[in-house]
Amino acid sequence: MQVEYINPFIRSMTKTFDTMLGCEIKRGSLILASDFKANYDICGVIGLSGRAQGVVVVNLSRDVAMQAAATMLMMDPSEVTDLNEDVIDAVGEIANMVAGAAKAELDEFELSISLPNVVVGAPPDIRFPSEVHAIAIPFECPWGAMSIKVGFTPCSVPA
Amino acid sequence: MQVEYINPFIRSMTKTFDTMLGCEIKRGSLILASDFKANYDICGVIGLSGRAQGVVVVNLSRDVAMQAAATMLMMDPSEVTDLNEDVIDAVGEIANMVAGAAKAELDEFELSISLPNVVVGAPPDIRFPSEVHAIAIPFECPWGAMSIKVGFTPCSVPA
Repeated sequence: MQVEYINPFIRSMTKTFDTMLGCEIKRGSLILASDFKANYDICGVIGLSGRAQGVVVVNLSRDVAMQAAATMLMMDPSEVTDLNEDVIDAVGEIANMVAGAAKAELDEFELSISLPNVVVGAPPDIRFPSEVHAIAIPFECPWGAMSIKVGFTPCSVPA
Repeated sequence: MQVEYINPFIRSMTKTFDTMLGCEIKRGSLILASDFKANYDICGVIGLSGRAQGVVVVNLSRDVAMQAAATMLMMDPSEVTDLNEDVIDAVGEIANMVAGAAKAELDEFELSISLPNVVVGAPPDIRFPSEVHAIAIPFECPWGAMSIKVGFTPCSVPA
């Protein structure tokens, strides 16, 4: 994928954490997703389609997911004690916001966004078809570590 | 979600395995995805969007994934020895075929399909936002066990 398509996703991730969660995040360097080996505890995943096909994986460490859920639910972080349904919903909504803000910047592709899904595991390892060449970006914030992985392929005919 | 939306996905799963892989599959009963606890080794996941938002998770046991990959690659199954890049690509392509055939039956929703992603884990556990009420269907075939989970929500305004 062309690196230029990644910038709207970096901006949307930064904006989602800053505006919606009041949490300043700092990005690391771009790396091919196939070379990025850090997997955190929980992933919000969402598809994009239209004049391009895409997928965004927002991968959060447990602490980031629980603090983000507490902030969205206006709860004390000590009240969010495990990766329960509230945290699953919060992580799905973060993926939705990240994809939604990136979609708005990529309007030439007339994108629409799918339902999110949320992957928990030990930790989950999300791969892409080999021809996609997805890109990963690590982020750090006061709550902990996270990353996004983005695959994005323009289509000559809408998918 | 309404149960009627699940039928195109059941037919597309059956058709993909029968036509593309020469493997006859037998479906079990519908169950709410949140109550379906069997997780197999590898998942192909793909989003749908348009006048509905959806997500399809095709969850295959290791044996099914490896036999399917061998069939698609016209290799002897003994040559496919682990969940390598060829198997990842094959599982992504199965998700793509299942979503593509269901999309064709659900043309009133003007759906487009995202890039697939493939989740491996120990095994991966894929959840949906709590308001989606996704449905799971177990399947059996001579190669082993598998399932699909589908979330599908019509939208008043295209997503």
